[in-house]
Amino acid sequence: MEMKLVEEAIKERLQMLRTFTSTPGHGVTRLPFSNEARRAADYLKEEMEKAGLTSVWMDAVGNVRGRLEADEPETQTIMMGSHYDTVKNGGAYDGIAGVVCAIETAKAIKRSGMHRRYALEIIAFNDEEGMMFGSGCLGSKALMGMVDQNDIRRLNDENGISIEEWMHRWGSRPEEIPALALDADQIRAFFEIHIEQGPVLDAGGKEIGIVDCIVGLLRCMVTVRGRADHAGTTPMHMRRDAIGIASKVISRLDQLADSQDNGSVATCGFIRAYPNAMNVIAETCEFTMDLRSREEESIERMMAEAETILKDCCAETGAGYEVDIKLRQKPVAMSRPIMDILCETCRENEYSFQKMISGAAHDSMIFADKTETAMVFVPSREGRSHCPQEYSEYGHLAKAVKIVYETIVKMNQE
Amino acid sequence: MEMKLVEEAIKERLQMLRTFTSTPGHGVTRLPFSNEARRAADYLKEEMEKAGLTSVWMDAVGNVRGRLEADEPETQTIMMGSHYDTVKNGGAYDGIAGVVCAIETAKAIKRSGMHRRYALEIIAFNDEEGMMFGSGCLGSKALMGMVDQNDIRRLNDENGISIEEWMHRWGSRPEEIPALALDADQIRAFFEIHIEQGPVLDAGGKEIGIVDCIVGLLRCMVTVRGRADHAGTTPMHMRRDAIGIASKVISRLDQLADSQDNGSVATCGFIRAYPNAMNVIAETCEFTMDLRSREEESIERMMAEAETILKDCCAETGAGYEVDIKLRQKPVAMSRPIMDILCETCRENEYSFQKMISGAAHDSMIFADKTETAMVFVPSREGRSHCPQEYSEYGHLAKAVKIVYETIVKMNQE
Repeated sequence: MEMKLVEEAIKERLQMLRTFTSTPGHGVTRLPFSNEARRAADYLKEEMEKAGLTSVWMDAVGNVRGRLEADEPETQTIMMGSHYDTVKNGGAYDGIAGVVCAIETAKAIKRSGMHRRYALEIIAFNDEEGMMFGSGCLGSKALMGMVDQNDIRRLNDENGISIEEWMHRWGSRPEEIPALALDADQIRAFFEIHIEQGPVLDAGGKEIGIVDCIVGLLRCMVTVRGRADHAGTTPMHMRRDAIGIASKVISRLDQLADSQDNGSVATCGFIRAYPNAMNVIAETCEFTMDLRSREEESIERMMAEAETILKDCCAETGAGYEVDIKLRQKPVAMSRPIMDILCETCRENEYSFQKMISGAAHDSMIFADKTETAMVFVPSREGRSHCPQEYSEYGHLAKAVKIVYETIVKMNQE
Repeated sequence: MEMKLVEEAIKERLQMLRTFTSTPGHGVTRLPFSNEARRAADYLKEEMEKAGLTSVWMDAVGNVRGRLEADEPETQTIMMGSHYDTVKNGGAYDGIAGVVCAIETAKAIKRSGMHRRYALEIIAFNDEEGMMFGSGCLGSKALMGMVDQNDIRRLNDENGISIEEWMHRWGSRPEEIPALALDADQIRAFFEIHIEQGPVLDAGGKEIGIVDCIVGLLRCMVTVRGRADHAGTTPMHMRRDAIGIASKVISRLDQLADSQDNGSVATCGFIRAYPNAMNVIAETCEFTMDLRSREEESIERMMAEAETILKDCCAETGAGYEVDIKLRQKPVAMSRPIMDILCETCRENEYSFQKMISGAAHDSMIFADKTETAMVFVPSREGRSHCPQEYSEYGHLAKAVKIVYETIVKMNQE
């Protein structure tokens, strides 16, 4: 692999792809089923064909796919890819960098002329972010047989337009989605290169992250029901202060996470109070808790302890509360044998690397339950992501391509 | 005084006055310069005249006023009143009950045929609540010479319409406001009967509250400037979590207030975060602190300690903060000699009473700096106020009238 050329190719494509945005000058906005998504998909199809992939097509759910067939009959397929949609006003790397790297990996394998024991399929997934329909990983779920007609009718955008309707407008055939489901036995492995979206590699001066696990997640909305009273005339001991009670829980989240001692994180990112007036004690306060950990027990423990604080504060004052669980995902382990090859390959190349958890969900999560899955992270400058400031070095992306390429070469020699 | 008749008169008038609302069925909404305010003012003028008051008029700032002249020449005036505006969707007692009680007090004095050493002026103040222009106590401030042309041009409603413009629309003459300023030396005392708007009297089973002080108040908006990061991928120790930092301060407000050990209160009633998304660490969080105490030192101490917590949390994480002081009022003492007469009169009548602080601002606050001022509270059921559920017993209001009436009688015998 000529690293300089790989780096140049990645740069050129990412610079072209960042122009497919509905918000020029304000980051990249490429929502599923948009005109920008269409232009990006058309460009990716061309690039896949230029890289020497065959059977290049867009499937019924909007994934762009291309193949390098194997040199042996009736063999498994190694799959590799990431997503080509973005959040609103996002960056030029999240998802799409992994798609471009996958195309480069395929090109390198094609050009190497090696004997291919396994076929290679490159995929640019649609709708990983869940920006429009609140769900996410639509493209990868469809391949794993996890999307049915009900889902695409049930999930609506903010104007009440369903995924199914968007697909019809886009010229897609939603009725063909069930047929997209792959037989997991036919997949040898799934690879995803992705930007870290966090500060760990950048702060640690590492070039490569080998993901050993995607965190489990519990996301809930808590509503504290207090009582609106005059902020001046109500003695402290007679209050049912919904913001006050909420703050008792939120202010403890950092301790709850730290005490797990395994990199768990706990976040309140959303808070809303009513009537939200300077001189009125809050009647209600809603807030979210987003609890993530590599260990399911840690998530349950953080949740239980937060609920104990909440319960005690409410009992003390006579306030009430409700907890509405919005999302619950188990931690997902990456393939240990493939991780070992990736680490070995980093060492051979003298790339600095570390094993790490992924604190964010990815398409890999969908594959990991059914097939051996590996994720390679590259540093995000200052950990910034989902914003126009998002940046990863082309050189790091090229190194990630080299690591995965050599790992796939080794697997083909199994 | 025939208590049954006083109670009936109060009931009848309050039942009529609650119909002057722009939100029938949803509490009383009688904003300054509204049609409802006009109808209430006209009704109050009629009732003042029926009670035997003379020189009944509406002044340039919208106060409704009437007088009982003294039997001696060149003497001082005892003033009594409260406000006739309400908050949005407020109750049928806040302010207006004190106006009705003042009219009843004047009627009793007139009917008693007593020798009046002092004149008596009854006032229904305009715009105490500050609902439209964010200020408040407009009517009482005008009488104390604290409103000038700049104020009424500068203060706008939410549509940018100034007080001056509202006055013109109402047919008032704003240019006459400076001439409303009274000579404080000509005022013997100011009395206000008001509902407590808090739970203290109701919970303690008392009929009357004698206010000894109106609390001082510091109200500020705090802005914490953190950094938006991914809630999953950012380790706890690398965060600048604006909601997290805000919660550290808010969760301590109750302890800060309690530790003053003098009935001080501290409230965060307003909170707003940005971007306020479940899976994003908050970049900014704004919240208010409303600190009240009978002792100025307590307010300063609570503020200083809250700011220390804020400063420490920000220093730890590298976040920033700003504090914008919105309002700062010193505690105001009521007249001790008049309080003594009011307490003695309660004892003579065997009414249960207690001295207490007022945690809310009132027109009395404006007078207290310049003249001897007294406030009498009646219980608010369950402490509810500024809501349709606001309720005070007519019997308690009649007892407050009796206490103030007898106190004024005693003062006329000085």
